[in-house]
Amino acid sequence: MGALQIYEEIKGQILRGVFETAGQLPSSRALAHELGVSRTTVTAAYEQLLAEGFIEVHQGARPRVAHSVVSEARHKSASKRSVRTRLSAYGEHVRTIPPWSDNEPGKLVVDFRHGDLASSDFPIMLWKRLMNRTLEQRPERLSYDDPRGSRRLRMALQGYLWRARTIRCDVDQIIIVNGSQQGLDLCARLLLDATDKFVIENPCYAMARQIFSGTGASPVSVPVDDAGLNTDLLAEVDARLAYVTPSHQFPLGGVMPISRRHQLLQWAKRRNAHVIEDDYDSEYRYDINPVAPLHGLEDSDNVIYLGTISKTLSPTLRIGYLVVPPGLQDVFATAKELADRHSPVAEQEALAALIESGAYESHVRRVRRFNHERRQTLLNALRHRFGDKIEIEGADAGLHMVVWFKNLPLSLEPALLESARRERVGVHSISRLYDPALPGGRPDQVGLVMGYSALDLRWIERGTHLLADAVKRVRIDAAVKTRQPKQR
Amino acid sequence: MGALQIYEEIKGQILRGVFETAGQLPSSRALAHELGVSRTTVTAAYEQLLAEGFIEVHQGARPRVAHSVVSEARHKSASKRSVRTRLSAYGEHVRTIPPWSDNEPGKLVVDFRHGDLASSDFPIMLWKRLMNRTLEQRPERLSYDDPRGSRRLRMALQGYLWRARTIRCDVDQIIIVNGSQQGLDLCARLLLDATDKFVIENPCYAMARQIFSGTGASPVSVPVDDAGLNTDLLAEVDARLAYVTPSHQFPLGGVMPISRRHQLLQWAKRRNAHVIEDDYDSEYRYDINPVAPLHGLEDSDNVIYLGTISKTLSPTLRIGYLVVPPGLQDVFATAKELADRHSPVAEQEALAALIESGAYESHVRRVRRFNHERRQTLLNALRHRFGDKIEIEGADAGLHMVVWFKNLPLSLEPALLESARRERVGVHSISRLYDPALPGGRPDQVGLVMGYSALDLRWIERGTHLLADAVKRVRIDAAVKTRQPKQR
Repeated sequence: MGALQIYEEIKGQILRGVFETAGQLPSSRALAHELGVSRTTVTAAYEQLLAEGFIEVHQGARPRVAHSVVSEARHKSASKRSVRTRLSAYGEHVRTIPPWSDNEPGKLVVDFRHGDLASSDFPIMLWKRLMNRTLEQRPERLSYDDPRGSRRLRMALQGYLWRARTIRCDVDQIIIVNGSQQGLDLCARLLLDATDKFVIENPCYAMARQIFSGTGASPVSVPVDDAGLNTDLLAEVDARLAYVTPSHQFPLGGVMPISRRHQLLQWAKRRNAHVIEDDYDSEYRYDINPVAPLHGLEDSDNVIYLGTISKTLSPTLRIGYLVVPPGLQDVFATAKELADRHSPVAEQEALAALIESGAYESHVRRVRRFNHERRQTLLNALRHRFGDKIEIEGADAGLHMVVWFKNLPLSLEPALLESARRERVGVHSISRLYDPALPGGRPDQVGLVMGYSALDLRWIERGTHLLADAVKRVRIDAAVKTRQPKQR
Repeated sequence: MGALQIYEEIKGQILRGVFETAGQLPSSRALAHELGVSRTTVTAAYEQLLAEGFIEVHQGARPRVAHSVVSEARHKSASKRSVRTRLSAYGEHVRTIPPWSDNEPGKLVVDFRHGDLASSDFPIMLWKRLMNRTLEQRPERLSYDDPRGSRRLRMALQGYLWRARTIRCDVDQIIIVNGSQQGLDLCARLLLDATDKFVIENPCYAMARQIFSGTGASPVSVPVDDAGLNTDLLAEVDARLAYVTPSHQFPLGGVMPISRRHQLLQWAKRRNAHVIEDDYDSEYRYDINPVAPLHGLEDSDNVIYLGTISKTLSPTLRIGYLVVPPGLQDVFATAKELADRHSPVAEQEALAALIESGAYESHVRRVRRFNHERRQTLLNALRHRFGDKIEIEGADAGLHMVVWFKNLPLSLEPALLESARRERVGVHSISRLYDPALPGGRPDQVGLVMGYSALDLRWIERGTHLLADAVKRVRIDAAVKTRQPKQR
């Protein structure tokens, strides 16, 4: 029997009130004798109990249960109220969001979920080598790093942003974050109060609406067409910020033309508002060159640019970056420090090395080819299975397309999702990306956001086949139901 | 001349208003001829300009500058107001915090900064092996993970917490966060509104006070003695949460006895408040066993436990964990998802493997021995250099101690820090850890928080020597100054 066991045993007895009346414990000598252990062992246990305040020791006397423990035990209330936890306003907002679920892993044969990548595209040997090299370059001491992130990575990104996106910025305007999501969160916290409004695309990236709404601010959902956010509708809007995806609108795929870009920037300037430009997948354009970002235009002083490697390397690495106006760089750095000090160091260094060597850009070119092929395969498969019963939107870029089912009214969406689940194909409706407070703003046909970047060509074809079966069944069921009431 | 150059050139001309009157561009054939390039090259450039909305193309006609661009250019306002950026209330709070600085790297010979670790203590070979193994086990697809973190790591932690800290919890009560700081941030956001109060130790971990204050809530700073937070003073306090370090008060080092623990938990129950138990360095006790956490006690339903590997492995990995009450596990998971989706995956898996194999716990024992030796060296060096002119507090545990200079009044603190800097030894005053709003609450002598876990024994001795020189100079200067006025 060791000191720890003795300690646990006596603590248990104290808490159960065994010593309640007298409160005296056996002397260490007596207890050692009784248990057949050395006196040192008992003394160690007693010292621990003493340190934790369970017992008191007075010179020459036997140890006794601490007075406070005894009286506490007597007053122990038996009433176990089950009070609902009071949360902050933010907490109450968070509580309304359905919990994360893994989309029934293993139950699906093919999943067209957007945002996933094929792990076979990841440059694993190269990444391992760079990570190993990083780990070997051990610094003298391990300490908290610059909240803005590794300087080496920020320098590498500065060059990359100029080469790939014509963005010119200072290294200290770049803040490394844990994926775009943290970038959005920092923007929301620093720029929005509960009394403010923010402009958001409709439909939009749902997590952006959630995080901005979390501040208590009210969304102004602005419709999107094939040229992105309709900036004509901004004139009268007094908002603190606008969240946009001008290079490739998510999810509909439009590119915002220069006229709207100017209109947006002018609006931001007039309102002293910020524009958050989420450039989440501009690496993937299959028709034209990547479209230059808002950030490079004149009067873009209010633009906060957001980039990520989640679509080019892996979403599991959790690395993104903000380019903030010079006047905001300190406040963003401190906000990042308060949020989590800084992002993990090793992956940042490995990514810096990847970019410096040019291997990142050749990797991007390589996966762009792969995804171009996947896209073509999906387009062909969809045309083959559905002919002109579908309309495809936003397939010129990115890693997903929107497929509208012309003959499926929105009311059949639940039936289609259920039918697809039965075929074990994962499909994801676009309707949940529209502002739920504006039901009139969404088309009244079923639309799916179909991602393809995680799938090999065979599975894309198989999945489209399964989806066609699912759609067929929904159509038959619907036809049967339409006829039934007439027969009664 | 490639398509990109042509595109850039024409875009520049459009933006400078070169085409303003007519708005017509040369035909692709004419331009190709003029530039001596293929027509395909010019067409590619024009397609890009078209996609971005700079130009319009009408069947059969020459391309022209888009109408909107022309009118936009005319209206371009010349006024460049320099408006101070409006931030949220949180943003204004963040703006008051001094920006991060690296403590003059390279300029110091020895730095006693608390929180740093020696990189020679890090199990680099083992970690590299585990990271490589993790990277090789590639999943089928790379997708967003459970916001609570890797299930494997949470299972490993569940066992570890039971073995090392007698904490029994469900795997889903554990939320992996980016170091303790993110854990504190999530607690602050979910539990505090601007109208609330929170209890905090005085002195305390400064970043905790900052993050809780960031919500707009008001701190109730409760004095700390050698038994931690003085819970007698809580009775009348109506706060939403209390932040405590009961196993090892930061920075003073007291262990909270069981009576105060009960008092704290009873208070929390009565007020329906939460207790955040920051168990940041309980692995390091040199006298007794690690003290059992609040979390294991009866009536600890309101306790949120916070652990980290920043003091055992490395602060650069950014891994910590919360153990939250079952009623809060969903809301914490969603809050983590909104904050940054989840923590990076590879390191979590490597840490899980480290814990499963038992190597984590033997690593902890190993570095505990190293730090015990460092601590003893620092104690001896301090005694040797300063004798009874100092008082040492909180040296029984953790990775730092507090050294009070009995003959140095607080007014000499700036002089001491300056003098130390001149000796190139980094020392860090305790006064900044006291609530600045309660100047009466802090002792009126100079106190330093001296961390030793990043230093080898030789440097500990050298640093103490340099510090002694710095103190000596301050004493002499002070004595000279005291005498001078009399001579005048």
